Amino acid sequence: MSQFDTNWSFINGGDFTPQGFYFSGISAGLKTSKRKDLALILAPEGSICSGMFTQSSVRAECVEISEARIKKCSGQIRAILINSGQANACTGNFGMQHFLNATSNVSELLGIKEHEVLMCSTGVIGVPIPINLLVKNLPKLVSELKVNSFNNAAEAILTTDLTSKKIVIETNIKGRKIRIAGFAKGSGMIYPNMATMLAFLTCDVGVEKEIWDKMISIAVKKSFNAISVDGETSTNDSFIGINAGKKINNEFLPIIQSGIDIVCQKLAKNIARDGEGANCLLEVLVLGAKHNDDAIMIAKSICNSALVKTAIHGCDPNWGRIISAAGNSGIKFNFKAVDLYIGDYQILEKGVLNQYDSQKVSNYMKSKMNGKYLVEDIIQIVINLNSGQAKGTAWGCDLSKKYVEINSEYTT
Amino acid sequence: MSQFDTNWSFINGGDFTPQGFYFSGISAGLKTSKRKDLALILAPEGSICSGMFTQSSVRAECVEISEARIKKCSGQIRAILINSGQANACTGNFGMQHFLNATSNVSELLGIKEHEVLMCSTGVIGVPIPINLLVKNLPKLVSELKVNSFNNAAEAILTTDLTSKKIVIETNIKGRKIRIAGFAKGSGMIYPNMATMLAFLTCDVGVEKEIWDKMISIAVKKSFNAISVDGETSTNDSFIGINAGKKINNEFLPIIQSGIDIVCQKLAKNIARDGEGANCLLEVLVLGAKHNDDAIMIAKSICNSALVKTAIHGCDPNWGRIISAAGNSGIKFNFKAVDLYIGDYQILEKGVLNQYDSQKVSNYMKSKMNGKYLVEDIIQIVINLNSGQAKGTAWGCDLSKKYVEINSEYTT
Repeated sequence: MSQFDTNWSFINGGDFTPQGFYFSGISAGLKTSKRKDLALILAPEGSICSGMFTQSSVRAECVEISEARIKKCSGQIRAILINSGQANACTGNFGMQHFLNATSNVSELLGIKEHEVLMCSTGVIGVPIPINLLVKNLPKLVSELKVNSFNNAAEAILTTDLTSKKIVIETNIKGRKIRIAGFAKGSGMIYPNMATMLAFLTCDVGVEKEIWDKMISIAVKKSFNAISVDGETSTNDSFIGINAGKKINNEFLPIIQSGIDIVCQKLAKNIARDGEGANCLLEVLVLGAKHNDDAIMIAKSICNSALVKTAIHGCDPNWGRIISAAGNSGIKFNFKAVDLYIGDYQILEKGVLNQYDSQKVSNYMKSKMNGKYLVEDIIQIVINLNSGQAKGTAWGCDLSKKYVEINSEYTT
Repeated sequence: MSQFDTNWSFINGGDFTPQGFYFSGISAGLKTSKRKDLALILAPEGSICSGMFTQSSVRAECVEISEARIKKCSGQIRAILINSGQANACTGNFGMQHFLNATSNVSELLGIKEHEVLMCSTGVIGVPIPINLLVKNLPKLVSELKVNSFNNAAEAILTTDLTSKKIVIETNIKGRKIRIAGFAKGSGMIYPNMATMLAFLTCDVGVEKEIWDKMISIAVKKSFNAISVDGETSTNDSFIGINAGKKINNEFLPIIQSGIDIVCQKLAKNIARDGEGANCLLEVLVLGAKHNDDAIMIAKSICNSALVKTAIHGCDPNWGRIISAAGNSGIKFNFKAVDLYIGDYQILEKGVLNQYDSQKVSNYMKSKMNGKYLVEDIIQIVINLNSGQAKGTAWGCDLSKKYVEINSEYTT
């Protein structure tokens, strides 16, 4: 599958989103900054939802209850409420109280059942949501539900993010226009297994629950679970994908899968690029592995290495650290078969140092580092293990002093 | 077992070391800085050696061959040659050639068998040792073997370390004086499973191979495998423990074990405290777990969290990150049973936020942060899971801008 399947084209602006879905995003005053902090997604009747949640032992109540509700109604979820500012995790009894209070109000306002409403929260751990403020603003949030408020919703879920992360793509199958849209938040605490990350995907093709679960899980493995900012996972990570609409012939499902993959990978790369203090996007491609999972594990291990990340930050082609990080992945391989490239420069050939101009490699790295937020500007590392046909990709970013600064001064 | 068994007392100065062992440390010009870079340990006849090595898939030849030699002669090793400056890892055929060249020269000079000599290397990966310089300096190295050159050897194995790490302890069993000594290097790339870390322990009580292996393994698990500086492991990590001397009655072996534990923990804590850019030593004690291994895993996960480490750096009692890191350890526990303390301040009681003065906690943390290198100045985090009797401790340090600086500018 090509990463950017030509069947799909990008739509800018956020005015055109999957048919039947409505979005809203407002400021309810949950954040002191007065930025938008409350979002709502409304799906049409008959929608099917799949959710993937944090694997941490410490999970926010909103994660527990949302997961339970999806299960209870076999994925027939109609609305998702999202607040930013407070994670509502580790808040004792408030966790459940505030979830139930908020979602029952939403269900009344929308005239849907309470268990058809999910809630996701993100922000500081241990601080309760100012629930009265939130509830007071729900009528406004509902009244602003619009097809083209997609951008507002995308904005309202952000915390330390520098930019909102969203994408809408469109294709045409047998004369029928089909759209998939996604938006996400996350910059620090991003690690394989979905760290402080929220992401929402909508699709206007009807796909039955069992197949949809599978499709979402495939896409998440190759996207949100293949990025690393700082190796952390959180109490609240959630990915929710909803579809609703007329079914299509099964033969076209691979096109839908490729669309979901595109949306998830684009959002995941945006999250990695927006890592706290990051100056570039790092892409590690591992080829020639025995199994795809091995390849992804090695790629992740490299993206997650503090020493690789600081070397990247210094535009230092320190291949020893790259190889060392690969060696720590837990996957066995023969170093003496390994080819390593940084950009177009071959550094190792069958485990032996190649002749390369280290200054040129450094310059290549420098050319990809900048203050501007460009996902297309990628520092690429390619490792060929030369011992199989499998491959995998992971994404990360550099580790800068700015990261330390941001995270030394977060709550106090 | 008490951590500092009163049976043992510390000896300063390095003039008195385990009986029968000789040490040497010189500058052979392997480092451009002209600092000491070549060390040698000579053990008496009949010595018994146990080694634990890096679990990375990419291992230096010196690791492979040293491990094989220990196995080949059932631990009857006589000498260990150690160079700093070059790791001699990923150097193609040089890896084995230089190992064999150096160790055969040492064996000739000492009149022992070639396979009784081990070699450990540490430094930059991928750069061959200037082997002629090394070999040229071996006669000098051997000629300077002395009982009281312990400090020179400890100094000669350092790389980015700010200070040498060494300890000698002594006890008296039934009128017999017994000593255990250890020295180590490591500051960055230190992680459970012995990252860029070399450590050597000598003991003048004879213990047979099988028991010795077990004793060393117990000590390493609770010390070198329970520290984290940056979550990295290396190609060259090695811990080697040698004993030689008259045996003692088995009933006294627990005293020896406690001595080995003291030496290993002291060295491990020194390594964590000397983490690149570190300003404090972090100790995480997990109580009330179901199994000791679970407790250590959770403690390690906290010590290894970039978000905890940056919060510590900022003297920010960000308990949410501590709990979140515990939740990511892979060990399941019930958050609602958890008590959490930072220093003497109780932050959580059964998962609920306690009344505490956050400024006072921050001041406690500040009081432990300083430019001085004091292992005794510890920021302690205690978690009680309240679900069992098992416990475990891990050590780490803060993550500072200095760490990023050091590691962005290492080779270039």
